[in-house]
Amino acid sequence: MNQNKAPLYEALLTYERKKNVSFHVPGHKDGTIFDGQAKERYAAVLAMDGTEVEGLDDLHHPRGAIADAQQLAAEAFGADQTFFLVGGSTAGNLAAALSLCDAGDCIIVQRNAHKSVFNGLLLAEAHPVFVFPNVEPETGVALGLTDADVSPALQAYPDAKAVWITNPNYYGMGQDIKKIAHVCHRAGVPLIVDEAHGAHFGQSANVPVSALASGADLVVQSTHKMLTSMTMSSMLHVKGDLIPRERLAAVLAMIQSSSPSYPLMASLDVARRHLVIEGRKILYRTVERLENKREQIQSELTCLSIYGGGSHVFSRDPLKWVVTCKHPSVSGYRLLTWLQEMGCIAEMADTRNVVLVFSIDINDIYIDKLHTALLRIDETIRNSSSLEEQDIPISDTVAVFAKPGTVSEVTMSLRTSFMSTRKIVPIEQAIGCYCAEMVIPYPPGIPLLLPGESIMPHHLEAIRHIREAGGVFQGAADDEMKTIAVLSKKQL
Amino acid sequence: MNQNKAPLYEALLTYERKKNVSFHVPGHKDGTIFDGQAKERYAAVLAMDGTEVEGLDDLHHPRGAIADAQQLAAEAFGADQTFFLVGGSTAGNLAAALSLCDAGDCIIVQRNAHKSVFNGLLLAEAHPVFVFPNVEPETGVALGLTDADVSPALQAYPDAKAVWITNPNYYGMGQDIKKIAHVCHRAGVPLIVDEAHGAHFGQSANVPVSALASGADLVVQSTHKMLTSMTMSSMLHVKGDLIPRERLAAVLAMIQSSSPSYPLMASLDVARRHLVIEGRKILYRTVERLENKREQIQSELTCLSIYGGGSHVFSRDPLKWVVTCKHPSVSGYRLLTWLQEMGCIAEMADTRNVVLVFSIDINDIYIDKLHTALLRIDETIRNSSSLEEQDIPISDTVAVFAKPGTVSEVTMSLRTSFMSTRKIVPIEQAIGCYCAEMVIPYPPGIPLLLPGESIMPHHLEAIRHIREAGGVFQGAADDEMKTIAVLSKKQL
Repeated sequence: MNQNKAPLYEALLTYERKKNVSFHVPGHKDGTIFDGQAKERYAAVLAMDGTEVEGLDDLHHPRGAIADAQQLAAEAFGADQTFFLVGGSTAGNLAAALSLCDAGDCIIVQRNAHKSVFNGLLLAEAHPVFVFPNVEPETGVALGLTDADVSPALQAYPDAKAVWITNPNYYGMGQDIKKIAHVCHRAGVPLIVDEAHGAHFGQSANVPVSALASGADLVVQSTHKMLTSMTMSSMLHVKGDLIPRERLAAVLAMIQSSSPSYPLMASLDVARRHLVIEGRKILYRTVERLENKREQIQSELTCLSIYGGGSHVFSRDPLKWVVTCKHPSVSGYRLLTWLQEMGCIAEMADTRNVVLVFSIDINDIYIDKLHTALLRIDETIRNSSSLEEQDIPISDTVAVFAKPGTVSEVTMSLRTSFMSTRKIVPIEQAIGCYCAEMVIPYPPGIPLLLPGESIMPHHLEAIRHIREAGGVFQGAADDEMKTIAVLSKKQL
Repeated sequence: MNQNKAPLYEALLTYERKKNVSFHVPGHKDGTIFDGQAKERYAAVLAMDGTEVEGLDDLHHPRGAIADAQQLAAEAFGADQTFFLVGGSTAGNLAAALSLCDAGDCIIVQRNAHKSVFNGLLLAEAHPVFVFPNVEPETGVALGLTDADVSPALQAYPDAKAVWITNPNYYGMGQDIKKIAHVCHRAGVPLIVDEAHGAHFGQSANVPVSALASGADLVVQSTHKMLTSMTMSSMLHVKGDLIPRERLAAVLAMIQSSSPSYPLMASLDVARRHLVIEGRKILYRTVERLENKREQIQSELTCLSIYGGGSHVFSRDPLKWVVTCKHPSVSGYRLLTWLQEMGCIAEMADTRNVVLVFSIDINDIYIDKLHTALLRIDETIRNSSSLEEQDIPISDTVAVFAKPGTVSEVTMSLRTSFMSTRKIVPIEQAIGCYCAEMVIPYPPGIPLLLPGESIMPHHLEAIRHIREAGGVFQGAADDEMKTIAVLSKKQL
């Protein structure tokens, strides 16, 4: 296959060149009718903001340019079949759940998954069995699962339809997927990997191996996050015969727009081309430069540390820097604010860490700017008399979960809990109640509490701590978490 | 409120001006890392392809620029609250179903709805009661419902959670929503209107009144179709207290991407501004010009006719021309092809008609081009000796439904039917079986058969006719419809 081609992008250029008159949607008519002040800004993209006319194929029924573009992507990422997603990895996760699970079906799921995994399971009415991850001691964040976590769960739940893990986690830490795939396939079930943060994995020798190359059966990748497509465009890859592809295609057509955005789809096409033609080489060199720089900066820091891997993780994404302050009184939120004041916008923070995300290429000027900023923050902390250095404790408030390896069934289905009659109570009175909503510190978007989970004192402690440190909540009715929705007694 | 402002678009310009360094997603880093051949094309939009950093608010938790932009939209469209949709009207319809219906809940639904309505009901496990529409005699297409259709259904199903209609239909034909809203509210249930094709309604005195102004409680509009936002961007409007808004917001956050596209959202913001500041006036003049032109062209045509309204419809969208040939042997698909050969790309065709979609503005040159094309096609048909003029019959193959006004329950839930074990049979052997998939002539995207519906001889006749006339199918495993998935005996 000719990876120099970008069939969908080229089809849109052909569409533009034809200069036919549009008596069809969209109403901006190739960009000719548009807000005066924004017209020039949008013009080039609106000229290819097409719809399902001749030559432009149909995402939900691909036979031409979109089918070709998807096939080139499948080759580039090592899949048997690739689906372009215009609803982000959210759409991929919803579709995975709805394709693999009928109502009541058991599925083994890593507890610290993105909310879209739980939302998919909720819509599918699946019966998830949660496996709780280990915690990385230096940063205090929840890791991924290992084969030793998954094996007993598969033995305890032989009817499970699949195992669903998240790899890497939001901090770029990964586990050995090959081993997990092995235990899954020995049990005859597919391995689903939410690889939202690892679209670049396997694309150079100095980044972690990809989930597909490790034996995963269905993989969701946010192409926009670590590669170069437009935000909200992602890919879903399938390999082997354990995934019902026909049902998957039907479900994707169900949950994604029937008017998918062509600029978004074409950005996936050119992101794949860019990666294959030059991105892989650039990525290799970027990783070399970044690793050198990380070690250099680390040697100059006193109070801050940049995570460099450890015995608890199998792989580390070199395009992510997790920066932690040795003084527990300096939260990740504070670090994020300080960096922002110096013009460096981080990806996210939690109570302990701030995460910086690089891309497959980076300008030296930007690394230097970050270098300067980190040194200045380090100095500020060092000179602050009120702070005392101490070892970093494992912070329960970063990864607020049960004992690592715990396997736990939901007491009530996510769906029933979400749909049931609820009441709002002050957060202090919620201990012992069943939660009726998702409580999601955002980012990272991993629910602290799910509908149907029992509210424990350590949850309240975590909510209080996140709130005080400056964190934000999604998913709950009261975004300040002074109150919480619980199931009314009737249901319990 | 100052409708001259576009708060979200302006926030993105501010974001760009700040020139901070991005250590966050997306990986294209404000467009600096991108496929060489497409870089210039995408540059201006990538520079504002943002994410949830400071100043850019959060779609799923709006408090700043997005909240302000949504409020301006609510004012412009006459809503109490407006939600921006990045997953198209599909997302709006899925969310409406999941917000209003728990499993097993009854809901009264117009049978000729867009597939996303049925998909929403499937996901919600609702129990839809279908009401079948009347047929417009000149064009043979399925219309909307009237209060006379809805009233008996509400009496027969007093537990119904809502009434869900589509207005206008894909052909721009509308019914009197005020009367339907009245019977709904008398029964204490909300009226949901899929107004995907009517985002411009109510925006000038010479287009039909909007659903919101007619008393609808929840309205979904494809802003990209008839107004000027980017494809896949839509709005969901709510008015009054009959809609559970908190649950609606939770469901929208569930089914839409957690990485929503800012260029799409900002295009909704500027489309609203453009409409209010100058679009309304332009729209008025456009309708005047188009109506004059339609009458003029009609007077010059012998074999073709452009639909001009009739006693079966309450309103007609002047921005849509439905062109029909008086010779039944000339299908809408054939008209579409002829127009295409002359550089005029139509919106869609069915076995009888071709639909041309205008926007709020149109250049005279384009109307003239269409004028010429229609006259030439008319002449070609007139000079073809093999065609004989005759009255247009009501074409069952355009609107293949039960007797108008029929109220019908599904025999098996959409979800159960979709999830059940199925078998593939040749289409000729399917009569009498329960369908296990959606059979959707596309466009218009209105399912001919739903999962759980009994396959009748007239369905097969319609499938054959649509196939022979050149139509395309979506939703089914075999897109040529030589085979069909039916429920295996076990389920029946």
